[in-house]
Amino acid sequence: MMHADDCVFCQIIRGRLPASYAYADEEVVAFMDLRPLTPGHLLVVPREHASGLMDLDEAGGLHVWLVAHRLARALRHTKLRCEGVNLLVADGAVAGQQVFHAHLHVIPRFEADGVRIGTEAPDGERAALDSAAAAVRAGLRRLAVVESD
Amino acid sequence: MMHADDCVFCQIIRGRLPASYAYADEEVVAFMDLRPLTPGHLLVVPREHASGLMDLDEAGGLHVWLVAHRLARALRHTKLRCEGVNLLVADGAVAGQQVFHAHLHVIPRFEADGVRIGTEAPDGERAALDSAAAAVRAGLRRLAVVESD
Ligand SMILES: [Zn+2]
Ligand SMILES: [Zn+2]
Repeated sequence: MMHADDCVFCQIIRGRLPASYAYADEEVVAFMDLRPLTPGHLLVVPREHASGLMDLDEAGGLHVWLVAHRLARALRHTKLRCEGVNLLVADGAVAGQQVFHAHLHVIPRFEADGVRIGTEAPDGERAALDSAAAAVRAGLRRLAVVESD
Repeated sequence: MMHADDCVFCQIIRGRLPASYAYADEEVVAFMDLRPLTPGHLLVVPREHASGLMDLDEAGGLHVWLVAHRLARALRHTKLRCEGVNLLVADGAVAGQQVFHAHLHVIPRFEADGVRIGTEAPDGERAALDSAAAAVRAGLRRLAVVESD
């Protein structure tokens, strides 16, 4: 199992720093975010160190998602206030990533909880959307080449 | 394949409404968000109608994630500006869900892009974190009972 010595999450996973665990299995752990946006804010973290989505292997990522999906459903069966859930990955500093060990946030939401996760934006032009779609399709082809090298 | 007649995404998937497709396979489609937060903002949508995380089956959810993870990597290989990525699920109106057909946002991010997805919060107290963790563990046990019924 690869670890990074200067990584807070690797240190938590190795038991060198405390965490409030909600779940653990052979591949991932889930513990409470130290700075919760709402009570019940969880992080699902692969045991193996990866800095983000680019170096997280697909199989490991799938298990992170599976556990997050279960935790999201489980939150509706707790005493915690949970009228909705955000699942969030912040990949890269500009995306809000603070710990560079890949992780997925599971955030219980309720009315007027003060969390700012905005998805409001003006309508896009169809030509711009089509152009972006073509760019992504080209990117998928490039990715297939790059990742098969 | 189950569809909901009044669901915008079901109508897109059935070809009755336009969309700018970036990807499609037998289980999921990915098209550009009509109101992009940034150029390249994608939605990954299971073909089968599910309103959210509670009724999305686990296997279907895994494939949504797999495609989102690939698209997130592919975005780094496009001409689109992408210095980071957010993956986001808004589950429930209070969490920002607008279309009640489960979907995962893939959002390219770059410096000063104006997107507000905040993860800043004050430190939590350890006792509160431990209590929340215990509540989630209890919720996982309840979920296992409920979902085995
Ligand atoms: Zn690490
Ligand atoms: Zn639908």
